[in-house]
Amino acid sequence: MTLIVHKYGGTSMGSTERIRNVAKRVGKWVRAGYQLVVVPSAMSGETNRLLGLAKELAPQHHDEAYARELDALAATGEQASSALLAIALQAEGIASVSYAGWQVPIRTDMAYTKARIESIDDARVRADLQAGRVVIVTGFQGVDPEGNITTLGRGGSDTSAVAVAAAMKAQECLIYTDVDGVYTTDPRVVAEARRLKTVSFEEMLEMASMGSKVLQIRSVEFAGKYRVPLRVLSSFTPWDIDIAQEAQSGTLITFEDDEHMEQAVVSGIAFNRDEAKISVLGVPDRPGIAFQILGAVADANIDVDVIIQNLSKDGITDFSFTVNRGDYARVIDLLKTSVIPKLGASDVVGDPKICKVSIVGIGMRSHVGIAAKMFRVLSEEGINIQMISTSEIKTSVVIDEKYMELAVRALHKAFELEQAAA
Amino acid sequence: MTLIVHKYGGTSMGSTERIRNVAKRVGKWVRAGYQLVVVPSAMSGETNRLLGLAKELAPQHHDEAYARELDALAATGEQASSALLAIALQAEGIASVSYAGWQVPIRTDMAYTKARIESIDDARVRADLQAGRVVIVTGFQGVDPEGNITTLGRGGSDTSAVAVAAAMKAQECLIYTDVDGVYTTDPRVVAEARRLKTVSFEEMLEMASMGSKVLQIRSVEFAGKYRVPLRVLSSFTPWDIDIAQEAQSGTLITFEDDEHMEQAVVSGIAFNRDEAKISVLGVPDRPGIAFQILGAVADANIDVDVIIQNLSKDGITDFSFTVNRGDYARVIDLLKTSVIPKLGASDVVGDPKICKVSIVGIGMRSHVGIAAKMFRVLSEEGINIQMISTSEIKTSVVIDEKYMELAVRALHKAFELEQAAA
Repeated sequence: MTLIVHKYGGTSMGSTERIRNVAKRVGKWVRAGYQLVVVPSAMSGETNRLLGLAKELAPQHHDEAYARELDALAATGEQASSALLAIALQAEGIASVSYAGWQVPIRTDMAYTKARIESIDDARVRADLQAGRVVIVTGFQGVDPEGNITTLGRGGSDTSAVAVAAAMKAQECLIYTDVDGVYTTDPRVVAEARRLKTVSFEEMLEMASMGSKVLQIRSVEFAGKYRVPLRVLSSFTPWDIDIAQEAQSGTLITFEDDEHMEQAVVSGIAFNRDEAKISVLGVPDRPGIAFQILGAVADANIDVDVIIQNLSKDGITDFSFTVNRGDYARVIDLLKTSVIPKLGASDVVGDPKICKVSIVGIGMRSHVGIAAKMFRVLSEEGINIQMISTSEIKTSVVIDEKYMELAVRALHKAFELEQAAA
Repeated sequence: MTLIVHKYGGTSMGSTERIRNVAKRVGKWVRAGYQLVVVPSAMSGETNRLLGLAKELAPQHHDEAYARELDALAATGEQASSALLAIALQAEGIASVSYAGWQVPIRTDMAYTKARIESIDDARVRADLQAGRVVIVTGFQGVDPEGNITTLGRGGSDTSAVAVAAAMKAQECLIYTDVDGVYTTDPRVVAEARRLKTVSFEEMLEMASMGSKVLQIRSVEFAGKYRVPLRVLSSFTPWDIDIAQEAQSGTLITFEDDEHMEQAVVSGIAFNRDEAKISVLGVPDRPGIAFQILGAVADANIDVDVIIQNLSKDGITDFSFTVNRGDYARVIDLLKTSVIPKLGASDVVGDPKICKVSIVGIGMRSHVGIAAKMFRVLSEEGINIQMISTSEIKTSVVIDEKYMELAVRALHKAFELEQAAA
């Protein structure tokens, strides 16, 4: 029998009516002869409700001191929605069983609130599948080596689903969500944005990391690493649409060596206004400064995105990077108190009101002048570029937040993304 | 250091403000030099909210088929409130850690929705106490031998607290609740009802089983078996009242051999209108009929309370018993379809509109005529007695539900319960 993993997001699980709808859809796949593992998110709003209660009790709740309990708290949202889905399936006459992360178990490291999956034991799940049951695996969570509950960070249920699909060698992992696929850019910003039938893993990775919030980035990494075919599709189609049609809908995330890929030069425009820019000024340019600055930031479990170090003048250089806007104040504080004095740098400055805009496309590898075209388009719109960062298939710029929409629309038009690739 | 267990009920945990209040009260005990294990219930309303969602998905959700998932669902309420209390304590500067039932672990049998605790491993909890932490143990739940989440039934957090107190040999188990102790009867029925400063375990057991809903009956059994001193007290006193005063408030549940006990003949009047009466008529009187009838009921995991078998006439007898009102229809159906035909009985009749009224008191052992006085009082009020059942320290009657208040008030007055014992 063919094994498929379904993942349903918070809005898809947002009410008992929607949960019943998910159960009917899953039932359709079961009756069509598939084995199913289903990974549901918490009912929409539930995680925020729980963390809101925590925040009332500990207004300074970003403090890592609370991290273990925040994870134990937040994990209950998915445990509840998983049990509810199992009940809905049973009410539809479909045998099912739900497992919390620790019951599978899904083993993670000990990084509370942003744990990484280390291994998945599939014995229990496989036995249930063989006994004819739909297995519901609670997303977003796992258990660390000491038996503490951990969570994988926001959107972590995507990662759970892909990790389970990889561990079980599922034929495909279907991510049901409230959008019907991956677009050339956010349709709320550019009305002409177009749904992509396929997108490569590498492109998706760059899109996801840039704030195209369709999929958690780590889930895409996982899918690429273990070659799990991944499809993003809508859970808002009628549950009883033809299964062959449903199986072809949405956006398939493909491997580069697959055939029939859309080979546009630029596949999409991603943007992210959740970042802040930080510059350490007047740093003596000697080996190890990047480590001294970013090591301290990493030790505080803060993710850094773009990193730029300018050429030094007279043995002095500036060092800039971006972090999540929510970490901005902490990083500034951290650098001022413990890094700058040791480093002998002159100052730390920053700007939380920036945004990052990126053009992404596998085709950029074989086409020269794409980045230059991006810079020209922005310059024609009078937009000043503050930072530039490039990879093989992506060019990103950091600009003033207020120019974001203008930049995205101009680039979408200039790269003709409203038209399907030839 | 002296170890104390605190248990806080759902209303005591009903909002973040109240949780903060619990944290301040616990903090007061910690600062006074006690080691504390705290067992919180789910926030009031949460268990009903969760089970209400399940009921929407499976309207026939009493079905045992859903039991495993109902337990996984309901257990999230206590897991969340435990994590919230840990956060509230940490925000007060008190080191604390919360453990779900499976993390302690609290091992139970596999009877979903009404599991029994089999053992508690105290190693992890003890290590935390020694490290100076308040340990929060999630009430109401445990883990079965196959790693499934189980719950202990409504009010099960009391049992969790007492079981933890027994396993850890705590000096006392304080049950904080929304009433300030155990009364001679329900003050909503009899205005003159009086709070008892002490009550014996055996009396409390009879009171609890009769619907004095202050404590779950199994928690009292546990406390008696392991000789855990148990005190019921209010969580609605100001958190900063003098700790010596708080430690003496409420009602202490004592061992019979303790000194200074109130030795009233009758300590209290209990009543319960949650039962229904069922009679199997025309049963051939031969060995094994009680087992044939009640064995089938027990196999369906239904509790039976009062059981009466009349003298037989011509080899034919009637067999009556009471069950929870919620199980009434199931039991009637069960008897009609699978027991009556096999047994050769003539019919099953029942009445869900009954109530049970009991007088309870250790002193009844050494005083004759107490039961007779009860029957006289009821007869003087014109109340017909349908069933009678007695134990060493209790006499219960089943009467028409509509006479309940009348019976309780008349008995409370006749046994002079409004006056403290000499």
